[in-house]
Amino acid sequence: MASSTGDQSQMVKNGLRTKVLTLDSMNPRVQRVEYAVRGPIVQRALELEQELRQVWPRAPRCPPGHTGVAELAPAPLAHATRAEGLGRAQSACLLPSPPLPGCEEAFHRGHPCQHWGRTGYGAEAHHLPAPGAYSASSGIQLIREDVARYIERRDGGIPADPNNVFLSTGASDAIVTVLKLLVAGEGYTRTGVLIPIPQYPLYSATLAELGAVQVDYYLDEERAWALDVAELHRALCQARDHCRPRALCVINPGNPTGQVQTRECIEAVIRFAFEERLFLLADEVYQDNVYAAGSQFHSFKKVLMEMGPPYAGQQELASFHSTSKGYMGECGFRGGYVEVVNMDAAVQQQMLKLMSVRLCPPVPGQALLDLVVSPPAPTDPSFAQFQAEKQAVLAELAAKAKLTEQVFNEAPGISCNPVQGAMYSFPRVQLPLRAVERAQELGLAPDMFFCLRLLEETGICVVPGSGFGQREGTYHFRMTILPPLEKLRLLLEKLSRFHAKFTLEYS
Amino acid sequence: MASSTGDQSQMVKNGLRTKVLTLDSMNPRVQRVEYAVRGPIVQRALELEQELRQVWPRAPRCPPGHTGVAELAPAPLAHATRAEGLGRAQSACLLPSPPLPGCEEAFHRGHPCQHWGRTGYGAEAHHLPAPGAYSASSGIQLIREDVARYIERRDGGIPADPNNVFLSTGASDAIVTVLKLLVAGEGYTRTGVLIPIPQYPLYSATLAELGAVQVDYYLDEERAWALDVAELHRALCQARDHCRPRALCVINPGNPTGQVQTRECIEAVIRFAFEERLFLLADEVYQDNVYAAGSQFHSFKKVLMEMGPPYAGQQELASFHSTSKGYMGECGFRGGYVEVVNMDAAVQQQMLKLMSVRLCPPVPGQALLDLVVSPPAPTDPSFAQFQAEKQAVLAELAAKAKLTEQVFNEAPGISCNPVQGAMYSFPRVQLPLRAVERAQELGLAPDMFFCLRLLEETGICVVPGSGFGQREGTYHFRMTILPPLEKLRLLLEKLSRFHAKFTLEYS
Repeated sequence: MASSTGDQSQMVKNGLRTKVLTLDSMNPRVQRVEYAVRGPIVQRALELEQELRQVWPRAPRCPPGHTGVAELAPAPLAHATRAEGLGRAQSACLLPSPPLPGCEEAFHRGHPCQHWGRTGYGAEAHHLPAPGAYSASSGIQLIREDVARYIERRDGGIPADPNNVFLSTGASDAIVTVLKLLVAGEGYTRTGVLIPIPQYPLYSATLAELGAVQVDYYLDEERAWALDVAELHRALCQARDHCRPRALCVINPGNPTGQVQTRECIEAVIRFAFEERLFLLADEVYQDNVYAAGSQFHSFKKVLMEMGPPYAGQQELASFHSTSKGYMGECGFRGGYVEVVNMDAAVQQQMLKLMSVRLCPPVPGQALLDLVVSPPAPTDPSFAQFQAEKQAVLAELAAKAKLTEQVFNEAPGISCNPVQGAMYSFPRVQLPLRAVERAQELGLAPDMFFCLRLLEETGICVVPGSGFGQREGTYHFRMTILPPLEKLRLLLEKLSRFHAKFTLEYS
Repeated sequence: MASSTGDQSQMVKNGLRTKVLTLDSMNPRVQRVEYAVRGPIVQRALELEQELRQVWPRAPRCPPGHTGVAELAPAPLAHATRAEGLGRAQSACLLPSPPLPGCEEAFHRGHPCQHWGRTGYGAEAHHLPAPGAYSASSGIQLIREDVARYIERRDGGIPADPNNVFLSTGASDAIVTVLKLLVAGEGYTRTGVLIPIPQYPLYSATLAELGAVQVDYYLDEERAWALDVAELHRALCQARDHCRPRALCVINPGNPTGQVQTRECIEAVIRFAFEERLFLLADEVYQDNVYAAGSQFHSFKKVLMEMGPPYAGQQELASFHSTSKGYMGECGFRGGYVEVVNMDAAVQQQMLKLMSVRLCPPVPGQALLDLVVSPPAPTDPSFAQFQAEKQAVLAELAAKAKLTEQVFNEAPGISCNPVQGAMYSFPRVQLPLRAVERAQELGLAPDMFFCLRLLEETGICVVPGSGFGQREGTYHFRMTILPPLEKLRLLLEKLSRFHAKFTLEYS
């Protein structure tokens, strides 16, 4: 046995020895992972909430995704949306538990859920597995079929094959799986992946963990965070010096930018990807969250198919969706799917194999996804109620998107693009030079310093722009539009006042 | 732009071009991943089920985890266990949906679930997040605390710190996360991980994907699959020639072996890990599944703590548990946890960061885990009913374990160790030389050939031993003990008869 070093024996003699697993010895790629959305700001917000609870035990508590202190944390969830409540009732119905004593009748008489998607208690009759059993690794076939029908309705009848739909543990799981397939090579041949800046940090975190090369392309803040193909070209050319770019990620509607891409833009991106031989990943989890007049969601799949040959039959595409967004916001169930288009059949088999190693996505999340993709049809008794609730939720989000833009743009030193879609604003803040210097002394990014001070002094929790990426010398933060309208107004005003005070303090 | 090659231009001209992502260009590590538990046999079983359904649409359907044809597929789930039903009712209660019309009363009057763990409908009062919201990435604090209390009761009062408990998406998720932390180095310094042979293929699949070195140690089939420390030494010594072994995985009770380790064995393993500086991963998901007289589950944590210094305060350990096994078998919810012991604090932070990138484990799975770790106390009204159901489930499993061993050992050419615990038998089968040769002609492992023939001719689906690993020249298969007793008897007899016929055919 050749294990012991002198060093180690000495430490053992002293009764002390280093751990097997330390920062020095652990996976260096994991160390490079960063994930601002649950980073120091959110950690600190949770600590403050704990402290608060100690002095005021009955403080109202928000779901942790929201870090209760401010109800402004990044995890999206529609606050008290009624459609959400309806969704949950549905989900409960899908659980084939023995009905609680006294509930049997309610399960069987005309509860709305019987008309929305499948009647849950009849799971057996529909050949659905019990949620307590593993499902197929690609998800329950019946739900894959419902997803395919949803995609077809969404895309004006363009066919979708259920066998190209794979259910997942939230969209994140599917995104990571597709990225895993793409990573290969070493040194100059290592896979590069183009991602937008600012981006949702799942992308940078996953690329770091996989040891792939992150290739940044910048969205144009001056044009409401539009994606510019010339910038894609620039990023690609530069990247080819040191890696092999093989994939292009697009987030539409944008997180954190709120941008909704035009059809022309999507066509140009597809043409670019085709010409440059890039696999396209379209993160479309906010497809139901479009608010701005004149903005409309166009799926990459639909645009691709309508472009015809050679694009339609050849461009490889993976499109992701989730139960965590939209008007339901059921993030805790971790439901999602990916639809792959033009993927090599053998690679698709490899993807299924990779998913199999984790057995299956959570079955309750699959059931919830089924509800998301199978809203009541016009002939269903619950149709009118559902439509009214959905419209109310979306109209309120639209009003909050508008309000956010308006209040921020009235504040000196803050500018905010229209929140065309998704659930966030990503305003730009001017930070005085002395604040930037002070941050540097503290070893903090300047916007991190600003956000920490904001949290400590107002209880408002927002995520610094540096966690998403931004042009050198600019500073931003991401804030959700989810709090109730009047509360959101107060928060926006409070934040604006804090910024003015902060600016004064460091001027 | 330096992208196009002549080759490619030619193909484009012909309207044909290779995909960006092909078997040749994809992640070679992903290609090396193998996962027999959902491999070709199970795929084929699903195809057969589909075919069957076409000719007989009302064929009874099993949860897909079970590939209905035979109800013998590897995914474990207690068949029609009553305790399971109780678990689900609990889980439904945890969903804070508005009660269905007509159910309000049942939710509030004395339904047993109100006495088992938390009353679900009162989630708000207990500061539990709604299942529709993200939880903290490490899981709901209240549930981490319940898990810690469960561990303390299990281990005779040895303290467990909730902050060392991390909830996960099934145990698989946590196992992969800990392995990710451990992988570092290149070439001769690449991390090696010792795993048992036969093993649960999550380990080999994950190590392949991470590019870590799999170091096999063989369990001793002659001694009921016992773990022998001399064999650990042999494996370690050989591995040190080509990698840096840093971790040791132990599965107890064993999957697929059914072995339950003695306390002496566990002590010896801990001493070995300590001396050789190996991080210990204890896969203890079958801790509630021990059947054999004289066998008892000892947790690695408890044994480690009772060994005192220097082990107790220094040996690094991660212990995994799941909602998918035990007497509840709620696999579709994907609940699980890891408890880490003596982990470096900075590494623990890195682990939390890694978990944060996926936001949180599914909240319904967390709720179900809470039920698993919080059974009714003796003072609860549901205590007697729960105990009776639990005992009935475990007694039936014990009877089926015994039956399996007995029927197989009566069959010529099949030998089966006692199924001391877990949910599987892993019998050894003699295969005639001509069958081995025929398999080689077909490019199949001999036991894969046997299992495929078995499936085609009897509809019985078992997984070949080659997917779990076995000594060269020996052949096995894994079969669950989950079907109802009388059905299991028929299946065991049918399988034994098929083996006799197969042997005759190739002799």
